[in-house]
Amino acid sequence: MRIVIVLYRRMTALDAVGPYEVLSRLPGAELVTASHTKGPVETDTGFLTLHADEALHTIGNADVVVVPGGPDITDQQQDRELHEWLRTIDPTTTWTASVCTGSLILGAAGLLAGRRATSHWLAMSELTRHGATPADERVVRDGKYATAAGVSAGIDLGLTLAREIAGEAVAMGIQLAIEYDPQPPFDAGSPAKAPREVTAFLTANEQLVLRR
Amino acid sequence: MRIVIVLYRRMTALDAVGPYEVLSRLPGAELVTASHTKGPVETDTGFLTLHADEALHTIGNADVVVVPGGPDITDQQQDRELHEWLRTIDPTTTWTASVCTGSLILGAAGLLAGRRATSHWLAMSELTRHGATPADERVVRDGKYATAAGVSAGIDLGLTLAREIAGEAVAMGIQLAIEYDPQPPFDAGSPAKAPREVTAFLTANEQLVLRR
Repeated sequence: MRIVIVLYRRMTALDAVGPYEVLSRLPGAELVTASHTKGPVETDTGFLTLHADEALHTIGNADVVVVPGGPDITDQQQDRELHEWLRTIDPTTTWTASVCTGSLILGAAGLLAGRRATSHWLAMSELTRHGATPADERVVRDGKYATAAGVSAGIDLGLTLAREIAGEAVAMGIQLAIEYDPQPPFDAGSPAKAPREVTAFLTANEQLVLRR
Repeated sequence: MRIVIVLYRRMTALDAVGPYEVLSRLPGAELVTASHTKGPVETDTGFLTLHADEALHTIGNADVVVVPGGPDITDQQQDRELHEWLRTIDPTTTWTASVCTGSLILGAAGLLAGRRATSHWLAMSELTRHGATPADERVVRDGKYATAAGVSAGIDLGLTLAREIAGEAVAMGIQLAIEYDPQPPFDAGSPAKAPREVTAFLTANEQLVLRR
């Protein structure tokens, strides 16, 4: 089973590393990180560099593709070469997936038209530009298209796909191996749960989170 | 504020990227990844390479140090150069922290003697070899030493430290920015919650998770 995680400059690292940490542990998994060119890929903060092991054009098929998001995906929404690659690989996949604003990249490639999908809460309404129907859920599945909410939701996406691919016992084993028993010290992870002033601050300073 | 995340070969990527994704968003944070030598660092699965931006010996002070864990830390438990670096940097920090089996590395450096600490559930009992008292909690603080449970617990560690450093409103803002509103599709993230056969399988096949 071949899992491809797409990397690009200024992406958010956890968007990729969350699903990676789950899916790489599936029995028989071969996971590949890929970008336009092989080599170092600087992420959004400028403080962490991931490494792409393959160039996208060398990859012609995949069982699972995961597209992470980032705070500024202007380039990726206009990247015809990337969209063409996604449209070519998509017919070969069992699952085509995204985390955070990665759904807007899948959307720009034309893969979410007429489908339910999710994204980072601040970017949710932009899904309609690509003909998708926003669904405010942690992980949204529509056929073989699975989209996750912002950043950390990629871990939940990974476990959801792991169960589909290898069954619940294996997926639970992975959850236990990575001790994913979340206990955040406060409960402000969604606009509905955060204090109004925290949500208002991020909404008013959207550029702190999403620079599009 | 300077945050140093230690990288080493065969570490677990999410152990580092979880706290990174939180702490790098603190106002005024400068985050540095460091290893014995600069350059690519292959992680435990062999499928993902992170990049160390600095060599450890060039770093003489830090406000926060985070040591991630990994399934095979035999080398890091015997790495005198790493332990010496940790003992030298520790008096300069406000927080000295670890994720997963990273606590056994702090322990091997002599920094956890007489302190309460946690680790990956499968490695918990080994803390006693370093004179620490195992505490089965998600994030354990003893003075300025903060240790987190396995792998994904690094996100909770990050938020806990973020609150201490910048206050609850900022920490909540970061939680909302990374949409950390965890909704795993099942609840098997700790030995107490997982079905007995899942826990038994991992305990009997410890080498799948921890290869020490």
